[in-house]
Amino acid sequence: MSTLLLKHAAVLTLNAENTILESSSIAIQDEKIIAIGEPPREFVADEIIDAQHHVALPGFFNAHTHAAMTLLRGSAEDLPLDRWFNEGIWRTESALQEEDVYWGVALAACEMLRSGTVAFADHYFYMHNVARVVQESGMKALLAWCVFGSDFAKEMGPTTLELTSDFVAEFQNSAGGRIKTMLGPHSPYISTERSLRDAANVARKLNVGCHIHVSESQAQVDNSYKQFGKSPVAYLNELGIFDNPSIAAHAIYVNEDDIEILRAKKVSVAACPKTHLKLAMQTTRIVDLLNAGVHVALGTDGAASNNNLDMLEVMRLAALLQKHDSGDATVLPSMEALRLATQHGARAMGFNNSGVLQVDADADLILLDMDKPHLVPRHNLAANIVHSARASDVNYVIVNGKVLLRQGELTTLDEEKIMREAEARGLRMARSAQGQTQMYKG
Amino acid sequence: MSTLLLKHAAVLTLNAENTILESSSIAIQDEKIIAIGEPPREFVADEIIDAQHHVALPGFFNAHTHAAMTLLRGSAEDLPLDRWFNEGIWRTESALQEEDVYWGVALAACEMLRSGTVAFADHYFYMHNVARVVQESGMKALLAWCVFGSDFAKEMGPTTLELTSDFVAEFQNSAGGRIKTMLGPHSPYISTERSLRDAANVARKLNVGCHIHVSESQAQVDNSYKQFGKSPVAYLNELGIFDNPSIAAHAIYVNEDDIEILRAKKVSVAACPKTHLKLAMQTTRIVDLLNAGVHVALGTDGAASNNNLDMLEVMRLAALLQKHDSGDATVLPSMEALRLATQHGARAMGFNNSGVLQVDADADLILLDMDKPHLVPRHNLAANIVHSARASDVNYVIVNGKVLLRQGELTTLDEEKIMREAEARGLRMARSAQGQTQMYKG
Repeated sequence: MSTLLLKHAAVLTLNAENTILESSSIAIQDEKIIAIGEPPREFVADEIIDAQHHVALPGFFNAHTHAAMTLLRGSAEDLPLDRWFNEGIWRTESALQEEDVYWGVALAACEMLRSGTVAFADHYFYMHNVARVVQESGMKALLAWCVFGSDFAKEMGPTTLELTSDFVAEFQNSAGGRIKTMLGPHSPYISTERSLRDAANVARKLNVGCHIHVSESQAQVDNSYKQFGKSPVAYLNELGIFDNPSIAAHAIYVNEDDIEILRAKKVSVAACPKTHLKLAMQTTRIVDLLNAGVHVALGTDGAASNNNLDMLEVMRLAALLQKHDSGDATVLPSMEALRLATQHGARAMGFNNSGVLQVDADADLILLDMDKPHLVPRHNLAANIVHSARASDVNYVIVNGKVLLRQGELTTLDEEKIMREAEARGLRMARSAQGQTQMYKG
Repeated sequence: MSTLLLKHAAVLTLNAENTILESSSIAIQDEKIIAIGEPPREFVADEIIDAQHHVALPGFFNAHTHAAMTLLRGSAEDLPLDRWFNEGIWRTESALQEEDVYWGVALAACEMLRSGTVAFADHYFYMHNVARVVQESGMKALLAWCVFGSDFAKEMGPTTLELTSDFVAEFQNSAGGRIKTMLGPHSPYISTERSLRDAANVARKLNVGCHIHVSESQAQVDNSYKQFGKSPVAYLNELGIFDNPSIAAHAIYVNEDDIEILRAKKVSVAACPKTHLKLAMQTTRIVDLLNAGVHVALGTDGAASNNNLDMLEVMRLAALLQKHDSGDATVLPSMEALRLATQHGARAMGFNNSGVLQVDADADLILLDMDKPHLVPRHNLAANIVHSARASDVNYVIVNGKVLLRQGELTTLDEEKIMREAEARGLRMARSAQGQTQMYKG
């Protein structure tokens, strides 16, 4: 049994009443919060953290990323989606080696923990290497091995649907429940109908969902109508991809019928506003989706488009961009934005007992140091976090009751070594990449 | 004579060729850069900074802010412009005391220096108190005392055009040239025609420009046509407000004729994209203005709308939002965004010898620590700064050759005391504010 006591923290609970407590204690035993306010009388803490001037809140859940793509950060700049894929990403990824994934994700884990992210939904290749980082770092993750299932795109390495379903069988609920899995068919525009149907069948058999890219561009939607006579969402739904609760990344170009499918099938939409801005894709209509009863979470997407993995920034951009696009400054107020970045992400990823600070919840929380010039005065705590805080204000990160960032220092990862190794591998990939692909056809 | 030597820095010069140097020295003598590359043989440094792993670049110039409004940070959230003014800001500002301005600006200065801002264009009240902070902090500033000049709005304290022109006469080029001044008529929608004409006359006499809010909403433009038969820009131009190089804040709703006036009169437009997003105002068409030959700089606006004073964030949002609104991911590439946030701001504020790292330029520069997980690998230095860096990466700030932030510590300001005093004053203002105004009529 291990115990941890936080003292003197403001607590932004994100419970149903949006309760905010002042100068409170949080008692943690093993993986759970066992008390907020006064600890139980018999409670003896192995570690005590004096959280004076700090606010405790649920950690961030990054609902869509490709963590290893930190290696490609800044390698394909100021390009639209088609050229970003064909001239940039898929060209450089042709030089990806299996072990690169481990180091790219390790770099991502350093960055994510430092910016308050406790869990990430990853969609990439060689996912056993991602699982290694999750095991070592202490983070939580939802892992999906990407399958192109394409007539024209070469799979990465040994990837087959069989291999990725073996991955699900082996890793589901591993690392003490910190790892969950889904299948990862890439998208309706690159995967064949047959490969999508096969993935849906296997997902049902394994009782997992699918994590898939959906409706990122008008061209994708137009092509779907041309080829299949229906929208990408309707097409995927008919193939059974959404039969278990799944994650649809982006879902920018969706109509009212699509929205009804997403709601009815309990699909979680992962909106990635920074990537949407950067690649000029327009953006997920978060407020419209929420109003229609669709579950919406937030993601960074990969660092090759984002260009970082900072969920505070993504949360802020989600709120700002919804105000901008709707012309209504009142939408997505700060407390709601916080809920999307934390609780909604937790549910999207299947960590249903997380994303809230209350007794019996998983102890997945962060402490932000609010004693900074840019966070004074405190007229509105939630607004100070959503619209003014920065990643460097995150001073502690706790996942399943274990301290992974302590006073700004990573406790589980060798950051210096990881940065050197990732830098070398990222530069090697850029050097050895050759030619350009035409894999992306929108 | 004082001397300073930076060693082993990457140098992002922002010179005409966008030269980037690796592991270079920068020699500074008194207020100027005297060498980049090897220092002169006889050079003896009073202080040597080992800038290994750091990049040196020109510091940020914040071309439009109301620094003291840090006191109101988070006090008027998720409101459109009219309600933000009437129910929020002007209500709380009714409780503003003269000495509050000093502490609010001191708080702003802590925040600005920590995020790499070397100079700010301030538009507010009791500006002698802003000048005190500029003198003490070592920053540069362009100060304009705001005059409502209104039929329906009460001036703040003893403000008159005469008092604000006395301020110009007293403070222009003071603090060793670190303080410059303009007149500060509030806007065409609140100031009377007569008060604007008077301000223009005095500005010509004093040989300074005006810093003024322009065309923030369609309603303002519509009302201008109704009242004066012309656009706000045309109206201000005819009154002579732009006769000396001036700053037009926002300039969102401008037509082609307006753009030609702004170009011909060498008006600098200060775009404030974060405020524009937050208040759902739409945004300055930066790329269109630049293409038409208008000088565009960037500002935070006040922390009551921004909600911080982080120019790195504003620079990033400028680039992202221009891509989004135009639907073209190629616009405002990183090096150009950097130029807007630094060099263009310097010129807008009349610091014509700053905003570039070259021999004989003012030594106004910052060092960012690039040895961080979110800045690895370095495929593209400018992109890593514009799209991934954060304020906390700013490790050194140098203004006129003087180190104002050294290894993350402020050298001229008592941050702890300033935070406590500003917090108390901000909360007092919110408590004592009463009623609501109807000053803003769009």
